[in-house]
Amino acid sequence: MNAFEVITDSTEALRASFRLHASGVSVITMIDEAGNPAGFTATSMTSLGANPPLASFNVASGSSSWPILCKAKYVAIHTLGDRNLELAGRMAADHTLRFTKSDWVRGPHDLPIFEDATSVMICEIREIHNVENNAVVIVNVLEGLVGEVGPALLYYQRHYMSPGKSLN
Amino acid sequence: MNAFEVITDSTEALRASFRLHASGVSVITMIDEAGNPAGFTATSMTSLGANPPLASFNVASGSSSWPILCKAKYVAIHTLGDRNLELAGRMAADHTLRFTKSDWVRGPHDLPIFEDATSVMICEIREIHNVENNAVVIVNVLEGLVGEVGPALLYYQRHYMSPGKSLN
Repeated sequence: MNAFEVITDSTEALRASFRLHASGVSVITMIDEAGNPAGFTATSMTSLGANPPLASFNVASGSSSWPILCKAKYVAIHTLGDRNLELAGRMAADHTLRFTKSDWVRGPHDLPIFEDATSVMICEIREIHNVENNAVVIVNVLEGLVGEVGPALLYYQRHYMSPGKSLN
Repeated sequence: MNAFEVITDSTEALRASFRLHASGVSVITMIDEAGNPAGFTATSMTSLGANPPLASFNVASGSSSWPILCKAKYVAIHTLGDRNLELAGRMAADHTLRFTKSDWVRGPHDLPIFEDATSVMICEIREIHNVENNAVVIVNVLEGLVGEVGPALLYYQRHYMSPGKSLN
């Protein structure tokens, strides 16, 4: 244990660890009850098994998308490539400007689909577990759309990146 | 929607999307009721908010660690750097060989701590949600250990990688 610096403040401990951890970047979209598009950038999206196909992501219950997500039945999970840098930034900034460009169309279940994403999973919301000021959302993957292949987009140390060279 | 190939098989859809998505790599350790070490490599570990500090990860209920995790009270979540390539591979392979090297010590709550990890979060298991053959585990972060800084370890397209250049 000599090699480590101990951080006793639990929030600081989490922050210090996640500064050292990289994440893939996705964009999750849905529609509200009136059919208007909503969505956000997520770095928490991950697989929860392939058979049956399940995915999960985390969302803050203070976010602009949260009340819409709570009433939504379906979401579109977009995996992003390094060519989607602007989209990743836009979907994490002012929520009134997220769908003002003409880079999306309506897909299955009227979901907003960003056409330049590397892929999209059309998903049905299965469970939402509230945990303090956040929630874990679990979805069934129904079908997929695969776009133009390209290097994945990462988020690491407050910057977007693409993967480097393979180590193995 | 012209740009996309449609994949109607839902399991294939999930696999196609996750081939295009990159993940950070962590190692999660615990002890069984006799105090023996157990653990595994995870690519699903993510933050669930900083205040209070929470993290989540997914685990297959068919894994060797699952029955131990179900009875455990604490886990140690290690973030890995590119120098931990061998550890990431070992903790994803034969579970009887995972703790046979002398690269770990006992930490808080007798948890096995790999001393060359970039950081460790000492966590208390808070909730486990079973979903089909998998589970979502939610933990409270209690304190942290920060090791020698180094580039993060990624998993992407069946290879381990480190991050490339910053895009922004």
